[in-house]
Amino acid sequence: MIPTPYLLFLGDAPDQLAAKVAQGIKDWRPENAVGQFRMEGCGADLSLTDMTLEEGKAAGAKTLVIGVANRGGVISEAWKEVLREAIRMGYDIASGLHNLLRDENDLVAEAKRAGTQLHDVRVPSVAYPIANGIKRSGKRMLAVGTDCSVGKMYTGLAVDAEMRKRGMKSTFAPTGQTGILVTGRGVPLDAVIADFMAGAVEWLTPDNDDDHWDLIEGQGSLFHVSYSGVTMALIHGGQPDALVLSHEPTRAHMRGLPGYTLPTLEALRDTALPLARIANPKCQVTGVSINTQHLGEDEAISLCEKVEKEMGLPTVDPFRHGAGRLVDALDAI
Amino acid sequence: MIPTPYLLFLGDAPDQLAAKVAQGIKDWRPENAVGQFRMEGCGADLSLTDMTLEEGKAAGAKTLVIGVANRGGVISEAWKEVLREAIRMGYDIASGLHNLLRDENDLVAEAKRAGTQLHDVRVPSVAYPIANGIKRSGKRMLAVGTDCSVGKMYTGLAVDAEMRKRGMKSTFAPTGQTGILVTGRGVPLDAVIADFMAGAVEWLTPDNDDDHWDLIEGQGSLFHVSYSGVTMALIHGGQPDALVLSHEPTRAHMRGLPGYTLPTLEALRDTALPLARIANPKCQVTGVSINTQHLGEDEAISLCEKVEKEMGLPTVDPFRHGAGRLVDALDAI
Repeated sequence: MIPTPYLLFLGDAPDQLAAKVAQGIKDWRPENAVGQFRMEGCGADLSLTDMTLEEGKAAGAKTLVIGVANRGGVISEAWKEVLREAIRMGYDIASGLHNLLRDENDLVAEAKRAGTQLHDVRVPSVAYPIANGIKRSGKRMLAVGTDCSVGKMYTGLAVDAEMRKRGMKSTFAPTGQTGILVTGRGVPLDAVIADFMAGAVEWLTPDNDDDHWDLIEGQGSLFHVSYSGVTMALIHGGQPDALVLSHEPTRAHMRGLPGYTLPTLEALRDTALPLARIANPKCQVTGVSINTQHLGEDEAISLCEKVEKEMGLPTVDPFRHGAGRLVDALDAI
Repeated sequence: MIPTPYLLFLGDAPDQLAAKVAQGIKDWRPENAVGQFRMEGCGADLSLTDMTLEEGKAAGAKTLVIGVANRGGVISEAWKEVLREAIRMGYDIASGLHNLLRDENDLVAEAKRAGTQLHDVRVPSVAYPIANGIKRSGKRMLAVGTDCSVGKMYTGLAVDAEMRKRGMKSTFAPTGQTGILVTGRGVPLDAVIADFMAGAVEWLTPDNDDDHWDLIEGQGSLFHVSYSGVTMALIHGGQPDALVLSHEPTRAHMRGLPGYTLPTLEALRDTALPLARIANPKCQVTGVSINTQHLGEDEAISLCEKVEKEMGLPTVDPFRHGAGRLVDALDAI
């Protein structure tokens, strides 16, 4: 668990895109962000209050979250001056960077002196169990994609937001570093040892109230040969009651795999559902989530209508049009 | 790579079963075993020549392989006396124990002094790549099981042995610690980080001659919810041209999962084959391997005949009856 709320460190981000982790926190957990910390030359702006480290502390921030990608794969000395100062003031530091905070001796030494924590969310901090497959109480939704990076995290977050708005019981269960930083907890599944993947998902989504929903962040795709094992562990460890099919309609090929075309939504349904029913015989496919960010408004709506007719399932872009109809379908099972 | 040949350390094994790693080496790579080393009270005997460490050295042994399970999860002082002496004499030590050699400071210090290696085959020693999915030359077979521990390794080893006998080009590609100790190389797939599982299998079975077969050791089962992600990575990283379905007919439930029944061979075929065809559209199911160790001779034969008729595929217990018919089918594709 990463202590919240956060002060969001944008550093010297060259542009808005470089600060997408911070953007995710602001979009989905604005209550977790007391303000933003920007260095000279920062090209990103989340329209949060600019704060010094002192002002962030005074506003209640407990953790300085690195909400920006670093350049060239090193944590620069300019960044580290700020991070060391923050640690001395009692902040925890949280990071999803490939370069780990724990590998920076000066930060480790400061944190030891100050008694604060360094959170590298890319690496597991828990000894996960081997999955036992025992049916858990409560309900679970998992987004499964025709490819990687098609909007599975946003689907889960949007469904969670809509459920909270309706007063339903729900928890977004992150399985990647951005989601973990957004919510302050989760499992960095792609960094878990193979034998413990499904067990890590069980650990993340334990027994709960019968009317509680875990919205599990999907990873990879059953059709993406580099990462399909991770997806498989999510399907079996997650024991989903509901699958939402996620798709990005403008891909020419599977992400990073020029020789592989995307499956149809029908193929995804027919592959994922029987596998999910091994762990949860009652699992259903309840909806389709289309990432229409590269389509115009009319095109987006007509594509959703077309897919809805073909698949016989509520079909929306939850980020663009809201997740209401996905939640209606989940609430009905 | 573990230097061969080996002297097989049986220690104070209480019985034959405790020495099953050594038994596997003797069964499948007798040329790798110059002899056995037994301590007082050893209840196992592989019918190899009993040798001292000196005699093993003189016979050409390069590595002392711990071919026995340790009791109580500790490497005893009695064992370590032998291991230290072996290291001083220039042996490498290889182990598949849960307790790692590298965690024993005295062994590490001796190995450093002697300039020999400690091989813990349960932990990866290679930084595996992320799978790229690019089609590789050569042919590959993967055994997929209705459950864990149904004879997938023995199927691969038996097919490899039969191919060698026929003068075909083949390599057994181990993905677990026993197989790695048997052959001296391989990937401990259950200990690989999730993101690199499929890449590790690609690494293990690179481009090869068009008429060369990699016989990839299967792990887990698509129907075993604890380990299915590992199986999935083998199917996609392995790009098999041929799947052999493996089954143990006397299981009451999935191994370690009392709530889960075994799938039928038909269900295994219909689940595994479409997934395999994502990575290799030409993949076929070429045979069935039944582990009949708990059946009498008549029962074993009549079961194989029955399954052969139902599945329309060559069906044998390769350990009991030889892998000839499985190899015939592989050679025909």
